[in-house]
Amino acid sequence: MRVTTHVCLTARALGANGVLIADVNDKQLVETISRVTERFGGEFSIQTGAPWRASLMRWKRAGGVVIHLTAYGIPLPKIIKTIRRSNHDKLVVVGAEKVPGELFQLADWNVAVTNQPISEVSALGIFLDWLFQHRHLEKEYPNAKLQIIPTEHGKRVQN
Amino acid sequence: MRVTTHVCLTARALGANGVLIADVNDKQLVETISRVTERFGGEFSIQTGAPWRASLMRWKRAGGVVIHLTAYGIPLPKIIKTIRRSNHDKLVVVGAEKVPGELFQLADWNVAVTNQPISEVSALGIFLDWLFQHRHLEKEYPNAKLQIIPTEHGKRVQN
Repeated sequence: MRVTTHVCLTARALGANGVLIADVNDKQLVETISRVTERFGGEFSIQTGAPWRASLMRWKRAGGVVIHLTAYGIPLPKIIKTIRRSNHDKLVVVGAEKVPGELFQLADWNVAVTNQPISEVSALGIFLDWLFQHRHLEKEYPNAKLQIIPTEHGKRVQN
Repeated sequence: MRVTTHVCLTARALGANGVLIADVNDKQLVETISRVTERFGGEFSIQTGAPWRASLMRWKRAGGVVIHLTAYGIPLPKIIKTIRRSNHDKLVVVGAEKVPGELFQLADWNVAVTNQPISEVSALGIFLDWLFQHRHLEKEYPNAKLQIIPTEHGKRVQN
């Protein structure tokens, strides 16, 4: 499984409404993630291929805010309340090791999930968990074809 | 950056003492992670190549407990207090998509960071964040050669 797939599954499982994968068209990724949503329920959109800057500017023009997760930013515990208070639609940006310097300026908030080298996958998961006040972890998804039944030792799935 | 690297960086940034990478010898990974620890401080051990079952049994014989992160397990919010109460050394096991069925039996706790398909990278990050009661995110590391200075818009690093 590729890192981008990890990012998408994390976004879905922790309560994001969808993902935009910038710059790269990736039909296979769209199929993989759409199949997960079809089987496990809920709604989750995925788009790939739009240029990153244009997508971000469109988001901002529509009144949304942009949160960039980076080890260089303000520690999550210091900034999360301010972010939660914002009623605007939120776009959370994660990148690979090298992101364009411009992004640090365009983002409304640069947020550090630890000021240490970390993975964008876990940074995204922890950020969303905090954003939703640690209340998303037991959510059930409507229209699921498959549902995992929590089990102490084993695997149980309900069709 | 490979997924295993994401797992290791997440473990270090969220407060684990070290990682064991089972079965595969990976000299390059050991170098990458050791270099991060050398630059950003703290102590973090990494071992690769030991067979998974033997490592796990040795851990248990030494009095440690084993926590397996899996979407099939008990939801994190339901079980975290019990786990925190345990004074035993904790080994958190994450695997790729297919883990041996035996692991579900050998683990003291099978824990679900959501009962949804998710990434083992974000599952590990969120689990450790909860285990340490959300207090690890602003930790400073002793003996750091590089320290990131939290910044609203930009990158600042202190040597």
